[in-house]
Amino acid sequence: MRPRVVIAGAGFGGLTCARALKHALVDVLLVDRNNYHLFTPLLYQVASALLDPGEIARPVRQLIRPLRNADFLQASITGVDLDGRRLLTDHGPIPYDYLVLATGAQSDYFGNPSLAAHTIGLKDLDEGLAVRNRILAQFEASRWTDDPGRRRMLLTFVIVGGGPTGVEMAGAVSELIRLVLRKDYKDLDTNEVRVVLIEAAPYVLGAFVPSLRAAALRSLEHKGIEVMLNAKVEAVTQSSVKLEGGEEFPAGMVIWTAGVKASAVGKATGAQLVRQDRIKVDPTLQVPGHPVVFVIGDLAGAENGHARLPMLIPVAMQAGRHVAESIKGLAGTGGASAFRYKDPGIMATIGRNSAVAQIRGLHFSGFIGWVIWLTVHLINVISFRSRLVVLINWAWEYLFYDRPVRIIVRARE
Amino acid sequence: MRPRVVIAGAGFGGLTCARALKHALVDVLLVDRNNYHLFTPLLYQVASALLDPGEIARPVRQLIRPLRNADFLQASITGVDLDGRRLLTDHGPIPYDYLVLATGAQSDYFGNPSLAAHTIGLKDLDEGLAVRNRILAQFEASRWTDDPGRRRMLLTFVIVGGGPTGVEMAGAVSELIRLVLRKDYKDLDTNEVRVVLIEAAPYVLGAFVPSLRAAALRSLEHKGIEVMLNAKVEAVTQSSVKLEGGEEFPAGMVIWTAGVKASAVGKATGAQLVRQDRIKVDPTLQVPGHPVVFVIGDLAGAENGHARLPMLIPVAMQAGRHVAESIKGLAGTGGASAFRYKDPGIMATIGRNSAVAQIRGLHFSGFIGWVIWLTVHLINVISFRSRLVVLINWAWEYLFYDRPVRIIVRARE
Repeated sequence: MRPRVVIAGAGFGGLTCARALKHALVDVLLVDRNNYHLFTPLLYQVASALLDPGEIARPVRQLIRPLRNADFLQASITGVDLDGRRLLTDHGPIPYDYLVLATGAQSDYFGNPSLAAHTIGLKDLDEGLAVRNRILAQFEASRWTDDPGRRRMLLTFVIVGGGPTGVEMAGAVSELIRLVLRKDYKDLDTNEVRVVLIEAAPYVLGAFVPSLRAAALRSLEHKGIEVMLNAKVEAVTQSSVKLEGGEEFPAGMVIWTAGVKASAVGKATGAQLVRQDRIKVDPTLQVPGHPVVFVIGDLAGAENGHARLPMLIPVAMQAGRHVAESIKGLAGTGGASAFRYKDPGIMATIGRNSAVAQIRGLHFSGFIGWVIWLTVHLINVISFRSRLVVLINWAWEYLFYDRPVRIIVRARE
Repeated sequence: MRPRVVIAGAGFGGLTCARALKHALVDVLLVDRNNYHLFTPLLYQVASALLDPGEIARPVRQLIRPLRNADFLQASITGVDLDGRRLLTDHGPIPYDYLVLATGAQSDYFGNPSLAAHTIGLKDLDEGLAVRNRILAQFEASRWTDDPGRRRMLLTFVIVGGGPTGVEMAGAVSELIRLVLRKDYKDLDTNEVRVVLIEAAPYVLGAFVPSLRAAALRSLEHKGIEVMLNAKVEAVTQSSVKLEGGEEFPAGMVIWTAGVKASAVGKATGAQLVRQDRIKVDPTLQVPGHPVVFVIGDLAGAENGHARLPMLIPVAMQAGRHVAESIKGLAGTGGASAFRYKDPGIMATIGRNSAVAQIRGLHFSGFIGWVIWLTVHLINVISFRSRLVVLINWAWEYLFYDRPVRIIVRARE
């Protein structure tokens, strides 16, 4: 019997780990609550009606077809029986010889129930579609009211959080409205439409150097986005946002990108947690006391030198490859070695012709930044077909200022 | 003030009517519960994981952009105040000078509650996505059970109704399973999978000549579909189908295409109804006693000579154009004239390389029929972009036996 490696989560970390185990003398079982792997960097493009779900999601089973030693099961993970070496799921327990926990992160509302109830996150495909449906539905609803106050409320879109997700989403919503919906709604008064980006820090894109933060801020304001810095959201209702300090304004929709914490699987393991509910791990990414259990990606409370590892795709992918090597070692005659993150750089786009990128001391913004962003993302969209269809949609949008999939659709239960 | 033409329904009939009024001296208002126009002939390809929703649905507002005298409102239609000349909606009443009712058809379960509760129809995009989610979810669920009986139940897909929709869906499900999912599920025993097509008549595709019915039946059986003729469904449960006469067999999913009736708007008007709840109309498609109200498409209980008009897209489109001319006449110095349907032919595909077509006395089947089907549908997919993306997906599937969008996704509410 070959040892069985169970990988919980088919995101970038889990999938990379499975692929890196392709030639190992182990059996790999991937488990995920969805049957697809999601290309999350483009989720905001589904949310802003540019891409269809199928263009950024690929069936896990298709992706692992080339891996002869890998299989997949769809299930929600409910916990881990660390001593009994079983992953617990809503379909029953799955025994493992080695376990890789890679279930990622979720929105964190910091215990504020009004945020949880009245905002939409942007962490999974369901949420991306919900955002798209909601934006379009509010434009339609705004055509039915003669009350300018209510119309302005329906047409105020608030994005909370000035990180890459918030900045990208704000830029995309602004362009959807200014470039596309304005043509759909001939009698729309664009002065009634607001796109507001709220950030608690005195700048957006805190992970970038000050010159790029400033470039991104200029670009956001140039695209008509009202950026509120040094502003914290205290409460959200169906129709308003209240800031700390008392200011309150009408808003029909609030997208929450300001808080993120590890997936609930972390807590459910019973292992020791660190900040953001991440599982505390050794430098080898093993759970202390459980050398056959590894944690990678956003769920891993790892430290790299003095800094904690950021919740970024390259971290998850590098960790996935690293842990695959460690498991090969443990299953053979070697052992686990310490993980060290090699930073390939960070980037964020604000929309057409505008992005910032920070790569090994080099800083890019504006059109050059955008070309870099485009190239990197095009290369990384995961399969040939997706790449082709995504490229067509992008080219179409760029040339014709169109958003092809602005349809409101829900699957019937 | 120019007269206001309100068109209820943005399907093929309503949209064609709006377009035909492009140069008329009237204001046109389209109303639909969805913000998109749906290319229904390819809905079964969404349901079978070949196309994404955005590829067969286009925003109504985009489609009417070239029409300077047309606008759109999204609302559910709740009735008509015929005497007050107001269309009633969930957002309030809309006054009209002329009204075109084009709200189409819905599934008819003939008052059988077990059919309504445990089958999925194929009339709108939500249902198409629901069918796709369900097929894929049952394959995933089948991997979790060791009970061969339960697995066989989960993997039995029943399509009720041997008309074009049922035949196309049965062919598409069979190909999804045999050509694609078989490669996704390496340990799948294809003997455990059943695709069953149930039809009450002694043949499928009753609208076609006997030789084409026979060709379609051979093609279905060649594709591994169990066709049950002279069979009527009496009841459906979560996990079984019971036929009239007592035979009962396990089935995890039942798709209902065997009954169709006019949309509920017909009944809500209070006008006189004929068979299938269609509104009785004069030969001019006017509602008797209400000369400013026209009915077109599946909702119209029109007669063409002695035969009632079939529920087909060409009927709706021709009627839309005809009614537009009548309205131009009434708004000017002319009047309404009798509608006469010109049959352009009918066709249905059973899958790869197989379709039947019956065009003015000419009969085609097999590969030639399929090429005709493909050409007609490609030309008719409504916009350039969609055509391009659909063509890529079709070519991809044809060459690589792939179904690109087999992902299970629901919009979060």
